[in-house]
Amino acid sequence: MHLKTLSESLIARFAEIVGETNALTRAEDQGAYLHEWRDRYTGSTPVVLRPGSTDEVSRILTLAHAEDIAVVPQGGNTGLVGGQIPSRDGSEIVLSLERLKAVRNVDAIGGTMIVEAGVTLTEAQNAAKNAGRLFPLSLASEGSAQIGGVLATNAGGTAVLAYGNARSLALGLEAVLADGRIWHGLRRLKKDNTGYDLRDLLIGSEGTLGIITAASLKLFPMPAERETAIVAFDTPDAAMKLFRRAESEAGSSLTAFELWAHRAQEFALKYMPNVRDPFTDDYPWYALIELSHGGKGTRIANTIEPLLTSAHGQGFIRDATIARSLRQAEDFWRLREAFSEAQKGAGGSIKHDISVPIARIPEFLQRAAKVVDGVCPGARPVPFGHFGDGNLHYNVTQPEHMEKAQYLALWDAMSDAIFELVTELGGSISAEHGIGQMKRDVLKRYKSEVELDMMRAIKKALDPKGILNPGKLL
Amino acid sequence: MHLKTLSESLIARFAEIVGETNALTRAEDQGAYLHEWRDRYTGSTPVVLRPGSTDEVSRILTLAHAEDIAVVPQGGNTGLVGGQIPSRDGSEIVLSLERLKAVRNVDAIGGTMIVEAGVTLTEAQNAAKNAGRLFPLSLASEGSAQIGGVLATNAGGTAVLAYGNARSLALGLEAVLADGRIWHGLRRLKKDNTGYDLRDLLIGSEGTLGIITAASLKLFPMPAERETAIVAFDTPDAAMKLFRRAESEAGSSLTAFELWAHRAQEFALKYMPNVRDPFTDDYPWYALIELSHGGKGTRIANTIEPLLTSAHGQGFIRDATIARSLRQAEDFWRLREAFSEAQKGAGGSIKHDISVPIARIPEFLQRAAKVVDGVCPGARPVPFGHFGDGNLHYNVTQPEHMEKAQYLALWDAMSDAIFELVTELGGSISAEHGIGQMKRDVLKRYKSEVELDMMRAIKKALDPKGILNPGKLL
Repeated sequence: MHLKTLSESLIARFAEIVGETNALTRAEDQGAYLHEWRDRYTGSTPVVLRPGSTDEVSRILTLAHAEDIAVVPQGGNTGLVGGQIPSRDGSEIVLSLERLKAVRNVDAIGGTMIVEAGVTLTEAQNAAKNAGRLFPLSLASEGSAQIGGVLATNAGGTAVLAYGNARSLALGLEAVLADGRIWHGLRRLKKDNTGYDLRDLLIGSEGTLGIITAASLKLFPMPAERETAIVAFDTPDAAMKLFRRAESEAGSSLTAFELWAHRAQEFALKYMPNVRDPFTDDYPWYALIELSHGGKGTRIANTIEPLLTSAHGQGFIRDATIARSLRQAEDFWRLREAFSEAQKGAGGSIKHDISVPIARIPEFLQRAAKVVDGVCPGARPVPFGHFGDGNLHYNVTQPEHMEKAQYLALWDAMSDAIFELVTELGGSISAEHGIGQMKRDVLKRYKSEVELDMMRAIKKALDPKGILNPGKLL
Repeated sequence: MHLKTLSESLIARFAEIVGETNALTRAEDQGAYLHEWRDRYTGSTPVVLRPGSTDEVSRILTLAHAEDIAVVPQGGNTGLVGGQIPSRDGSEIVLSLERLKAVRNVDAIGGTMIVEAGVTLTEAQNAAKNAGRLFPLSLASEGSAQIGGVLATNAGGTAVLAYGNARSLALGLEAVLADGRIWHGLRRLKKDNTGYDLRDLLIGSEGTLGIITAASLKLFPMPAERETAIVAFDTPDAAMKLFRRAESEAGSSLTAFELWAHRAQEFALKYMPNVRDPFTDDYPWYALIELSHGGKGTRIANTIEPLLTSAHGQGFIRDATIARSLRQAEDFWRLREAFSEAQKGAGGSIKHDISVPIARIPEFLQRAAKVVDGVCPGARPVPFGHFGDGNLHYNVTQPEHMEKAQYLALWDAMSDAIFELVTELGGSISAEHGIGQMKRDVLKRYKSEVELDMMRAIKKALDPKGILNPGKLL
């Protein structure tokens, strides 16, 4: 696909659509849009466009399509695989959705909400809360992450176990296609079997098939009751045993089961403020467990205490502490949310966002530790993540006495070895972060040619000129 | 698209793939594959092929693709919109998946199951049950409906409220593409963000994008507790009030909320065996409510009684009867499942499978009754369906003294009028039955040109010769 670079006059035509103040051409104005926060991806662009309406997005795409100009859609710039960052050659427009901030509709009775792409996840949660409803999607960057990007990447987070990922929470979309036409698909129906599932095709396509401008989302009853605990284990097998027990006894009330290794907690306590150790002793593994329920009639209170007492009596958990106040529950979650950031303090970190069938997590953890040692003796695995979804952030911190750059040069060797193991166990090399720039080449090694062909055929069908987020995903 | 008719020698080449006994060419052997059970659709075919493996399906498609022969995939032949019936001109092969009957794997610990396309829904439920797990999808034709067809049509049924439709229950697919290549997508992961959502694209595509040969499905804990009741109301508004109350008090334990009008029950009592009236008096509207819970720790028992007592005290329900035994609960469900069949006894019936946003159901019912009267004075609406999903089977029985054929000639006029109303209310003209042959032309009137174009582009990308189930859906 041959895409053009932008002339001054063409930049002016794009700027005219959004108004001069929303067409950023100076380096000092563009910085925030061109750098990914972990400093892995940096790009260049002639202009960052900040349209104020779906119609303006449509006009930008119409012009880009006519002139063969590549467009990189961007939300809150919180993506972890570089999907939102343009190439370095300065040929691609950045289209920020941040000004599409309207909450168009909240239907508390119907349990739906229509928000525009630039609404942050926190703002969406609050819009629901103000109507007495729950929008459950929750993740560490929710203050910045925007609904458009969250859907374009099918984001996950900590509430997936009970409510599903972003895909499960969307009822309909409004999107602008590669040629500038608007697809008005903002349905609010639980059931609609009238043709191909275009909604789910756009969700998770990372801006390569269309640009999401608004979404209708599902709302849920607010949990009336919630119980939170942190449990200590000797092994992931013991955590598995408790997970199965909790699942069987609490059913759909089990809304979180997050696992971490001791090292994750150690780093959090050492490098992050306002984080407390839930126990006086150290243990090899921990899990945060949460039960919650929308209903008032169903009494879950005191489900967790007998569960943990019985598990302790049978000797497969080492210790447990149950939150006695909302504040203590927040402390528990603050600890859990600190792991990702805390690793920065311990030096270079090679990160993986993998999933395996849940039953194989213990095997994965055991074998992955050996794999890591084979690639870089002394490297320190910091596994943590969404155990209940089979999704682990299997990050590996550098050995204590090694140059950071020297360690990070091992990234591909380390990832390849981990991905081989994940693939052998029937897992995924990207559970919730997506492909972006980071795993684009890797993807080609782990997907079958048939599947890649299907994806390429669909890309060509919906974006024949290849102007939507080129160089990402496929 | 120019598709060819089959020569004797070509039929022989197809027969060779499956073996002579599985290539049905005689009219007496083909009958069951060419007629839809409600007698609305009849087709013709030179040969019904019954492959015994995914590899045979692949070889059939490879040959069909090379020779430009159209293929109509068929499961249990229980579809209601003619999607599984070939055209009348005898140019299309019928490919029955009924011999792909292996349950390849049941992983009770991991909560997944891999079954082949020809496994019936009942057999799939039983495979799960034998492993102590629940496969929740349930619908009236479950004894005949097969997993392949259930997924190809994204079937719904009575458990959608809590567990979602077929789409929500599939983790991965194996499918044969138009050119005969096999897509091995049988993942068993809860989270996998590695590219376009091909699974959901094939699900609900009615065999027009690929032929599903196997699926990995989600399993759930068996409900440990269940409460079932039938409630009587004066109006759909009162049913809405109880639904909201039940949703708020029972949360995700509310697994069914089925509404019906008095006439549906009257017909069932009159025309169907083994059906009992739950009350001694007659009421205008009824609902079947079910609460169930997978967990042992959560006590839902006696949630329903205080709920109904309080609702009765506040005067918005007329009467209620709670099942006191499993047998009585089965009686309640037998009544509910009898409505569709019962309408045959009362003469001609014009059927609709619509959905609207739940909050608009009362308005829909009120206005639809007027619409019906406008098209055919004296025609008798028999509304029933999945209230909690916003999905009603808005069937309309002929006036008492009218020729059946004369009434059925009004089908298009009646449907058009109902669909106009549904569209005005933001609803769907096919909530769970799909498009097939029946609504193919109607679809073009109710979908935007943009959406139809997206669908056509995808169809062309994955089936450029148009050999997969032509004349259906698009």
